[in-house]
Amino acid sequence: MTDRIRNYINGQWIDSRGQASLDVMNPATGKRMAEVPAGSKEDVMAAAEKAHLAWPSWQNTPATRRIQYLYKMKQVLEENEHEIAAICTKECGKTIAESKAEILRAIENIEVACGIPKLMQGGFSENITTGIYEFYIRQALGTCSCISPFNFPIMIPFWFMPYAIACGNTYIVKPSEKVPMTMTRIFELFEKLDLPPGVLNLVHGGKETVDAILEHPFIQAISFVGSSAVAKYIYQTGAIHGKRVQAQGGAKNPVVVMPDADLDAAVKIIADSAFGCAGQRCLAASVVITVGQTGEEFMNRIIRSAREKKVGNGLSDDVDMGPVIRKESKERIEGLIDKGVREGANLLLDGRGIKVRDCEDGYFTGPTILGNVNPDSEIYKTEIFGPVLSILHADTLEDAISLINNSRYGNSACIFTRSGAAARKFRHDTMTGNIGVNIGIAAPMAFFPFSGWKDSFYGDLHGQSLHALEFYTQTKVVIERWHDAWTRKF
Amino acid sequence: MTDRIRNYINGQWIDSRGQASLDVMNPATGKRMAEVPAGSKEDVMAAAEKAHLAWPSWQNTPATRRIQYLYKMKQVLEENEHEIAAICTKECGKTIAESKAEILRAIENIEVACGIPKLMQGGFSENITTGIYEFYIRQALGTCSCISPFNFPIMIPFWFMPYAIACGNTYIVKPSEKVPMTMTRIFELFEKLDLPPGVLNLVHGGKETVDAILEHPFIQAISFVGSSAVAKYIYQTGAIHGKRVQAQGGAKNPVVVMPDADLDAAVKIIADSAFGCAGQRCLAASVVITVGQTGEEFMNRIIRSAREKKVGNGLSDDVDMGPVIRKESKERIEGLIDKGVREGANLLLDGRGIKVRDCEDGYFTGPTILGNVNPDSEIYKTEIFGPVLSILHADTLEDAISLINNSRYGNSACIFTRSGAAARKFRHDTMTGNIGVNIGIAAPMAFFPFSGWKDSFYGDLHGQSLHALEFYTQTKVVIERWHDAWTRKF
Amino acid sequence: MTDRIRNYINGQWIDSRGQASLDVMNPATGKRMAEVPAGSKEDVMAAAEKAHLAWPSWQNTPATRRIQYLYKMKQVLEENEHEIAAICTKECGKTIAESKAEILRAIENIEVACGIPKLMQGGFSENITTGIYEFYIRQALGTCSCISPFNFPIMIPFWFMPYAIACGNTYIVKPSEKVPMTMTRIFELFEKLDLPPGVLNLVHGGKETVDAILEHPFIQAISFVGSSAVAKYIYQTGAIHGKRVQAQGGAKNPVVVMPDADLDAAVKIIADSAFGCAGQRCLAASVVITVGQTGEEFMNRIIRSAREKKVGNGLSDDVDMGPVIRKESKERIEGLIDKGVREGANLLLDGRGIKVRDCEDGYFTGPTILGNVNPDSEIYKTEIFGPVLSILHADTLEDAISLINNSRYGNSACIFTRSGAAARKFRHDTMTGNIGVNIGIAAPMAFFPFSGWKDSFYGDLHGQSLHALEFYTQTKVVIERWHDAWTRKF
Amino acid sequence: MTDRIRNYINGQWIDSRGQASLDVMNPATGKRMAEVPAGSKEDVMAAAEKAHLAWPSWQNTPATRRIQYLYKMKQVLEENEHEIAAICTKECGKTIAESKAEILRAIENIEVACGIPKLMQGGFSENITTGIYEFYIRQALGTCSCISPFNFPIMIPFWFMPYAIACGNTYIVKPSEKVPMTMTRIFELFEKLDLPPGVLNLVHGGKETVDAILEHPFIQAISFVGSSAVAKYIYQTGAIHGKRVQAQGGAKNPVVVMPDADLDAAVKIIADSAFGCAGQRCLAASVVITVGQTGEEFMNRIIRSAREKKVGNGLSDDVDMGPVIRKESKERIEGLIDKGVREGANLLLDGRGIKVRDCEDGYFTGPTILGNVNPDSEIYKTEIFGPVLSILHADTLEDAISLINNSRYGNSACIFTRSGAAARKFRHDTMTGNIGVNIGIAAPMAFFPFSGWKDSFYGDLHGQSLHALEFYTQTKVVIERWHDAWTRKF
Repeated sequence: MTDRIRNYINGQWIDSRGQASLDVMNPATGKRMAEVPAGSKEDVMAAAEKAHLAWPSWQNTPATRRIQYLYKMKQVLEENEHEIAAICTKECGKTIAESKAEILRAIENIEVACGIPKLMQGGFSENITTGIYEFYIRQALGTCSCISPFNFPIMIPFWFMPYAIACGNTYIVKPSEKVPMTMTRIFELFEKLDLPPGVLNLVHGGKETVDAILEHPFIQAISFVGSSAVAKYIYQTGAIHGKRVQAQGGAKNPVVVMPDADLDAAVKIIADSAFGCAGQRCLAASVVITVGQTGEEFMNRIIRSAREKKVGNGLSDDVDMGPVIRKESKERIEGLIDKGVREGANLLLDGRGIKVRDCEDGYFTGPTILGNVNPDSEIYKTEIFGPVLSILHADTLEDAISLINNSRYGNSACIFTRSGAAARKFRHDTMTGNIGVNIGIAAPMAFFPFSGWKDSFYGDLHGQSLHALEFYTQTKVVIERWHDAWTRKF
Repeated sequence: MTDRIRNYINGQWIDSRGQASLDVMNPATGKRMAEVPAGSKEDVMAAAEKAHLAWPSWQNTPATRRIQYLYKMKQVLEENEHEIAAICTKECGKTIAESKAEILRAIENIEVACGIPKLMQGGFSENITTGIYEFYIRQALGTCSCISPFNFPIMIPFWFMPYAIACGNTYIVKPSEKVPMTMTRIFELFEKLDLPPGVLNLVHGGKETVDAILEHPFIQAISFVGSSAVAKYIYQTGAIHGKRVQAQGGAKNPVVVMPDADLDAAVKIIADSAFGCAGQRCLAASVVITVGQTGEEFMNRIIRSAREKKVGNGLSDDVDMGPVIRKESKERIEGLIDKGVREGANLLLDGRGIKVRDCEDGYFTGPTILGNVNPDSEIYKTEIFGPVLSILHADTLEDAISLINNSRYGNSACIFTRSGAAARKFRHDTMTGNIGVNIGIAAPMAFFPFSGWKDSFYGDLHGQSLHALEFYTQTKVVIERWHDAWTRKF
Repeated sequence: MTDRIRNYINGQWIDSRGQASLDVMNPATGKRMAEVPAGSKEDVMAAAEKAHLAWPSWQNTPATRRIQYLYKMKQVLEENEHEIAAICTKECGKTIAESKAEILRAIENIEVACGIPKLMQGGFSENITTGIYEFYIRQALGTCSCISPFNFPIMIPFWFMPYAIACGNTYIVKPSEKVPMTMTRIFELFEKLDLPPGVLNLVHGGKETVDAILEHPFIQAISFVGSSAVAKYIYQTGAIHGKRVQAQGGAKNPVVVMPDADLDAAVKIIADSAFGCAGQRCLAASVVITVGQTGEEFMNRIIRSAREKKVGNGLSDDVDMGPVIRKESKERIEGLIDKGVREGANLLLDGRGIKVRDCEDGYFTGPTILGNVNPDSEIYKTEIFGPVLSILHADTLEDAISLINNSRYGNSACIFTRSGAAARKFRHDTMTGNIGVNIGIAAPMAFFPFSGWKDSFYGDLHGQSLHALEFYTQTKVVIERWHDAWTRKF
Repeated sequence: MTDRIRNYINGQWIDSRGQASLDVMNPATGKRMAEVPAGSKEDVMAAAEKAHLAWPSWQNTPATRRIQYLYKMKQVLEENEHEIAAICTKECGKTIAESKAEILRAIENIEVACGIPKLMQGGFSENITTGIYEFYIRQALGTCSCISPFNFPIMIPFWFMPYAIACGNTYIVKPSEKVPMTMTRIFELFEKLDLPPGVLNLVHGGKETVDAILEHPFIQAISFVGSSAVAKYIYQTGAIHGKRVQAQGGAKNPVVVMPDADLDAAVKIIADSAFGCAGQRCLAASVVITVGQTGEEFMNRIIRSAREKKVGNGLSDDVDMGPVIRKESKERIEGLIDKGVREGANLLLDGRGIKVRDCEDGYFTGPTILGNVNPDSEIYKTEIFGPVLSILHADTLEDAISLINNSRYGNSACIFTRSGAAARKFRHDTMTGNIGVNIGIAAPMAFFPFSGWKDSFYGDLHGQSLHALEFYTQTKVVIERWHDAWTRKF
């Protein structure tokens, strides 16, 4: 078929050797847009071999020259922002503004990776004992790969790939089979970079492709973002094959609203955080814990704010929230809302059954708010990954923190307060890797590690910044001795 | 039984709940010295629970106060150097000088860990966008553990433990069941530190103990040193249980002797490296590759030097080399020598059948040298872990490096040369994590990572220095916004 | 004379060659305790020459061995805490608790300097262009010196000296001629360290000594703490002689009390900060700016708290505040109080004329509080360096910050508030190098730079931590190329 | 006059208020090209005031946004490489290739400065005592300035300026009055950056301008490159006005040729280093010290190589070496050659009296080599800053290093050898801040400090990389305490 998306291997666009294909849908319209290969082991083998062959000369290219490709990469993303954002919105459903925000974050990571010549320096010590010196360098691992989820088709590979190639590795990007078009277009645009063939490769597919990546002996390190269950599988399977793995999982991110919070700010920010990207964000606020008296006032206002969100096709400028990714996702989310109600939650705002004009077949669920959610209920514990906000109450900040720390997830937690003491206690005691104070989405800048904890992360080194650098390199320690006497005879 | 070694849990000496015991032998005399518990799941559970309970208050103890215990730890090791070294020599077999060298390296690691208050600092960025700032801190993981091999009863736990506790973790040391007495005595001496109970724990045992550590949900991170097969098992099993793991495996470390090498220095250093600790060192030189003309001259001199090594009970001052750890080890090593000869190697020096006066039952094998070893033979590929040196020849430095890079191991490689160019090429091209130039044992100082590669290491962060710090902490990113307007109303 | 204090040069106690002497007084009793040489150029020349000669072999001593002396130094200070504190209290006047706090901070700096082997590492970059690598190391400067003030006889040399010698420099300490006994005793105790002669030297004296240090060509770098006028002189004169200089000057440190401050905490902490060490601290709170309504309540309570301070001989356990350093200081301080009153301030608490039993000849001024101080008055602008607290009022936080930023000084500023927003605005906008939030004395820990700004500091690199390391070393960059072809012929 | 070069202040091109002007000459043709203002105090005042006003909002612009201007800056230099190089060659005399090499190095510094958001991070420590945390940030100083020499019209301001503005300072560039056109053109091109007015300013002039910069109270920090005499003056005068200063001075850079050197490589590289930029480089090789037997062979070959250098107008592609900067320079250089001969040196190659076709009025001196130069002669000690190479002989490497270490300069030193031991000894013992091994010009990459020592540098922090970052920022330490109790009442 003519619209079947191809892989990019060794500088060439190549058909997948696998027969099966999957449909790429526009979730706002329910229309099929393209066909993506379901993937095959052969595709991964081809990519891994070419990437492996491209590695030695890429590693020996000076870092100062390697980053010149990244400067161009930044420019290509900047110059093609609109086009890339539109594709992303079409296959992923989020709004154009949300798609552009992804590009911005991708660029920020490229910028940090441009600093690799300095950041990659090893250390040097004179005279560890008299006349002997020792130093270490960081060298690339070889070929590495990332396996990327559907919810950030643009951004997530850039948490990893720019660092990997800046450090001298060659790379294979495996996008989600639900949103393969965006990265495919980005790779088309990247042909302008004139990277040596094999340095950057793109392989499409589903589980077979993933497993082939996990198993291939040439692939040294794997970065993953997805649900906790799959993250754990990736971590385990990668480790069984002796690889380095960093695997970022799911989340259920709580926001604490203190009695002294600035409610105007809090309501607006929390609504954006809960319903932005239709709640399909690993940093989305999905639980609010109100502390003390503010509960009711907050509830009324967040309902009002949620109700005002315009739901629709993300391509329209005036839309605040798009669809979820697939019909099955919509059904699953709405099933969870049912379950929540059955478990005793108050359905304060019901987004089910929303109709969007001209998008009757789109996968829309409107903003939904559940009140009085029981922390022992399943709805509380499950990552819904949709536009559903659960509200709980706690008497004190300590209670709220206990609630949070009992969760299996540890991606992020936020607090709204005017109190310096509450902020300090919260950030010190809360066991999540990303903390926000008067912020809705505590997404670390590219020069910080993206620090999930607990079941939200498997591994030790995170994406972005120095952690990415360390993950994509190995240290080589050198100890040298030269006798002065040797300088006297030739 | 009165001489059954006990565990140290929560500040108390406690009998293992497991029934079975193993003998602790003096390898120089073949005499049984003590009995060590074979270990039990209950022991690990008890230690993990107590360590887990001790954690919160230890983590909240300021780092500047935590390191005061390390200063005392350094002092205790210094003041009891002779006693500790003697125990180590008795149960491990190595010479007193070798035991003392371990203590020195242990102390160096404590010293580096004393710098944790500075090294552990996170980063702070003002104005990531106007008025918003972001920072990260490193927080302890909880309870961590190391599983330590027989060949360095003192040093190896100190590659990990001082960093772990300096960072605010609580810890369980699991020494080798072959050499449990040394660490037990060290823990007795450490009672003087007055560490809060539960911070530092000692659990003895064999595989059941190891598996219980790998599985226990309270244990967050595991450090291991041993053979590659077990290292891989530890890495896989730890990962299956979602933990952080760093697992250092075996090695077969080559030394290249270039035609311009200073043979006096090279021969002496290589003999020390190959036969020190009876070759039971993961950094021992076990293969020499002579390049160009020097082959024969080198071979004659290394045989002479090896022959002069005095083999005996490590407690005697004039002994150069002690026994191997167990009768089975001796038999295995001697079997491998047989095999080497069958595979076509020349037996240039045969250490089998050596008799040591007053130590007739000791597990001694003398220095052994095999010449003309075939790189395709099994003897070449197998880690012998005994005083056996294999010699090969290569025509050029490139050929020597190819030989090395074909190995599955990547622990260390050394070169002897007067040429700056040969040194540079060697350290750049050779794929091992530790490189020595005119050095026999490229053991990184404590302020460098101990950088094994390939099958010599599973994981990403190594022991010692900043890698240990990163391994034993997790990053927490905080993003804060405070509105200036709030400063105007109270 | 028998009680004339001697210099310590090249490992020996030597009489000053200068004839003149100065009296060392006990400020609590007004009694002469000893005689200190007024100093001479010859003394400095002797010390500089010996230190210069000692340098090369000290620099070539591995850093890991150099720091062993620092570990002992820490131990010596710990073991002799009481004796050192008593001498300090006798010649300097502060309480025993205050003297001990100095020792603690001195030790903390030694601890950070013990981390030098790691902290001193330079950087290494492979392949800056193919086949060429570049690295840098830090090397010691040679002989360096600090010129230390009377108010912290113990602590201040340790902001500099431990780093200097850890980095491989040799050193000359010049204590204040008002308090020479403490450092002299410390040097006596340091004989136990067995430092190589010439590494650490002590030279007493006044201005002639200072000028000789500033001019001597062997002295590469000078650290100073004192008044701003002298700091500027030191900076200028040192620079004229081409040296590195870091010169810390005076201060007038404001504390802002916001309407939402916890007054219990604020009053207690501010009273301690203003009157501790009799106000002779470069980080003393000497101005309080109350914002909004709290003014009166705060004023009443701080007067009460100040009145309760027990003034007396610092040797007594129950004394809160000792004398000022000299009769002339007392007269100067009391003259400034007069002037303040003449300039329109309200004398809320008058410490002049205080009588201390058994210390009738001591230089005591009691806690003094001036209210309604005019920011244009001279008393406001002058560093009083005595137990005098001035109180002002501002309507808003912005106004308070403006007041602070108009000062020529920039040492420290503190705020008391419960508001996270006020804290953020204050620390961002206030132009002082050390900021405290709900803290009275913002003295940076030893692993932070001691960051004065504006006229409170001349230079760029501060004392303590990495700044000290950078100040006491110079970078050496090395670029190397070796041709692979050279590995083929010998 | 229409061709009088203007200043760029606050985003506008403005005539100097000074009346006097100086001629800008083309040194290859001796023709006047333009007129540059001799400068005035008023010009500096205007620039300093505007830069001072622009500072607060520039500092509050997030670093991530500030660096976007630097990305554009890189692009502008890349896109206009040919035009800028041509102007530089015309007014400075060097070849087009040499001018382009400057641009490349300027760009590299911009690239490193683009990493400022990461590099500028301060440190954060939790729990310095329980419940208290401490952090530091780096904040800009205000307005800073560099005073730049004639020999690198493009590169040298970029050692400083990109870092300064990336860190949030505003800036004044003062180019050499001999080569004002290049930077003026660069500033014209930089108008495309759309930097906020006042951030980047250009002021022309001579000594009066320099003195006004040194004295102006708004200018916080000064970077200088020039002769040692002027560097010292700048350092002293800046310090007298209380400023931070880094002042890079002159040099006399030795190259040691060992008996085992690869003479082909050594001769070619040394000839390029000695005669490139007509020897007007602070890193030019101006002295060769031959060790052992190689002397004569080297001498013959370097004469041949020098003789082959084609001297001419740098605009021609086939020219290897251009003129010196001024007629007076030529006369001074030729006078020094005379003096050298009178002092006993052998004139091995005489570049005086060279005629260049079509450039009869250019300031040309051809490559000149003096042999047998006496290390006590003045010619040996004087920085000639022209195409004159002096050759000496030493018996051993130790002797050669002694010769080097006796010099007042410490900018750079190189060695040619195949021996790892000679390289180690040389780089360890030689007291210069930049060391080359088998390299002619040891110019540190932009991610290393440019490390002059001794009279080649006054100050402590050098240009480029982290030193520039530290020089252009001041640390602010913050210590905060918040009581948990405050979280319970609102």
